[in-house]
Amino acid sequence: MIIDCHGHYTSEPRALLDFRKRQLASGNDSAEIAQTWSISDDEIRERLAPAQLRLQKERGTDVAIFSPRASAMGHHLGNADTSRVWTKICNDMIHRVVSLYPKNFIGVCQLPQSPGVPPENCIAELERCVNDLGFVGCNLNPDPSGGYWKEPPLTDRWWYPLYEKMVELEVPAMVHVTASCNPAFHTTGSHYLNADTTAFMQFLTSDLFTDFPTLKFIIPHGGGAVPYHWGRYRGMAQDMKRPPLTDLLLNNVYFDTCVYHQAGINLLTKVIPVDNILFASEMVGAVKGIDPETGNYFDDTRRYIDAVPGLSAGDRQKIFEGNARKVYPRLNRQLARQRPSA
Amino acid sequence: MIIDCHGHYTSEPRALLDFRKRQLASGNDSAEIAQTWSISDDEIRERLAPAQLRLQKERGTDVAIFSPRASAMGHHLGNADTSRVWTKICNDMIHRVVSLYPKNFIGVCQLPQSPGVPPENCIAELERCVNDLGFVGCNLNPDPSGGYWKEPPLTDRWWYPLYEKMVELEVPAMVHVTASCNPAFHTTGSHYLNADTTAFMQFLTSDLFTDFPTLKFIIPHGGGAVPYHWGRYRGMAQDMKRPPLTDLLLNNVYFDTCVYHQAGINLLTKVIPVDNILFASEMVGAVKGIDPETGNYFDDTRRYIDAVPGLSAGDRQKIFEGNARKVYPRLNRQLARQRPSA
Repeated sequence: MIIDCHGHYTSEPRALLDFRKRQLASGNDSAEIAQTWSISDDEIRERLAPAQLRLQKERGTDVAIFSPRASAMGHHLGNADTSRVWTKICNDMIHRVVSLYPKNFIGVCQLPQSPGVPPENCIAELERCVNDLGFVGCNLNPDPSGGYWKEPPLTDRWWYPLYEKMVELEVPAMVHVTASCNPAFHTTGSHYLNADTTAFMQFLTSDLFTDFPTLKFIIPHGGGAVPYHWGRYRGMAQDMKRPPLTDLLLNNVYFDTCVYHQAGINLLTKVIPVDNILFASEMVGAVKGIDPETGNYFDDTRRYIDAVPGLSAGDRQKIFEGNARKVYPRLNRQLARQRPSA
Repeated sequence: MIIDCHGHYTSEPRALLDFRKRQLASGNDSAEIAQTWSISDDEIRERLAPAQLRLQKERGTDVAIFSPRASAMGHHLGNADTSRVWTKICNDMIHRVVSLYPKNFIGVCQLPQSPGVPPENCIAELERCVNDLGFVGCNLNPDPSGGYWKEPPLTDRWWYPLYEKMVELEVPAMVHVTASCNPAFHTTGSHYLNADTTAFMQFLTSDLFTDFPTLKFIIPHGGGAVPYHWGRYRGMAQDMKRPPLTDLLLNNVYFDTCVYHQAGINLLTKVIPVDNILFASEMVGAVKGIDPETGNYFDDTRRYIDAVPGLSAGDRQKIFEGNARKVYPRLNRQLARQRPSA
């Protein structure tokens, strides 16, 4: 079985995006706008079929851990109420997709973050998504300001009430920013990768996982710059008299495989222990084209994993399936219920 | 000959750091403070000998392109006058080092940047350093705010007057931020690498090098996250209908080798054309210890280059020497004058 731990709903019906435009134009009278539109199951099917569903089939992947479009979370737009309404609608859309295609998608939720608003404000929506909608994780934005980085580091007690709930519910978080509104940062070309690198370094310099030994984070986009600079991080931890990175972080921090060329995946699998790597493609996402050097889609990351020299069948199984089942215990239980024979 | 293109003066005499403390405490009455202290040549020698000089000898590198400590530039501290005074003093210290050890060090200057102050304000100091002190390049900070990223992208016309002067003087810039005052970012663990990634993506989305075909930038720390995500960048450029990265950027953008493990250097040299890689170690810098896995200093990057499989002697010569001579034409001319036999 191949589990893609990083999929966003980027083939959403236009009506959803239109609602968002009207919401942002409305000065937050969102509740009323919400009544005025609807999306049929057929529209959902029509847009998903040629996108994520086709690519899953073509690439031979089985199930995607699926969350709302990350760049559209837009936590910096409007206020906490704007974010609450938009987040609920986006998560409900994920629930509809999962209900239509329960074998292809499993839900992960966006959180109703807003700059300066304490993270405990997200707990009710997290509980609703996990307990009522069957979601197995959440996306946590370390920078709700959209590129100005005004929130305390992820290791600050500011975030602890949310972490307590995540631990209680047994759900991990993928660290994922949304669109940048800072002209210095291109959303998918630098802001996403910078956030990954930033979060890792925050974890490295803190004792967060002493306080929360079972809290788990997935750092997407192959961990930003981290595996490429693994020597730098090992050395910095040593200079700071921190424990080795394996002891300090690798029971709690995982990297996905959204790295769109063979050399990058080779490096990732060489320097990061195989138990900490989760298969992912983020399709349909940041890079949509075909690599003229290979003739395959840049984001067809399964091919790179398949081609890593010296990776055993057992290692591949961990990356494709086993690690995701461990990091997302609720996913594991859902899969066991859905596919008792597997 | 081995040229290390990325060295900072991190063994500076304490009096220099003490001056900075007093300057920042003084409310900018810096001119007066500047009279009250002095540093002898012996103090400079005593601190350099066991640090950069010893390591150059031990590692068999010949000359370092040497600039003031990057984290101490502190462009966000005080105002434009603070930055002007501090920058002049730091650059003068580099000139003293170069005058004492002209075969070991060649100067690169810090610029007197300050948040919101137009870059043309840096031109006088750049001209002084290049024309009067014999420096061969400059360090350009894309984020003088120290981690809040409030300046226009490096591709904005805001920066053009400085670029015109750089082109006229035939000096490249290393893109290098200073210390982060944003608690989200660790200075050397995330802010530096994020800045590298950010600058590259700014270049990718602009036509800066159509406007300045001979302008050259070195992106340090192995290019941040860029080589690890080279497929992502190739794919994004293609999706955006930009030219291939080699045509778009690689006549103007270079990467150094400050990547502190073998797997990282192997990736760098595999995906980035050898003509765009400049040897560097940034010693004594972000990582000072010895890697227990190899028994060698993490930042002894010469060993990694020596050990890259399949790199020809000609390729190594380009990385160690030839590319630096091309990117820094003033360095090349100085070396020819200093060592006519070489």
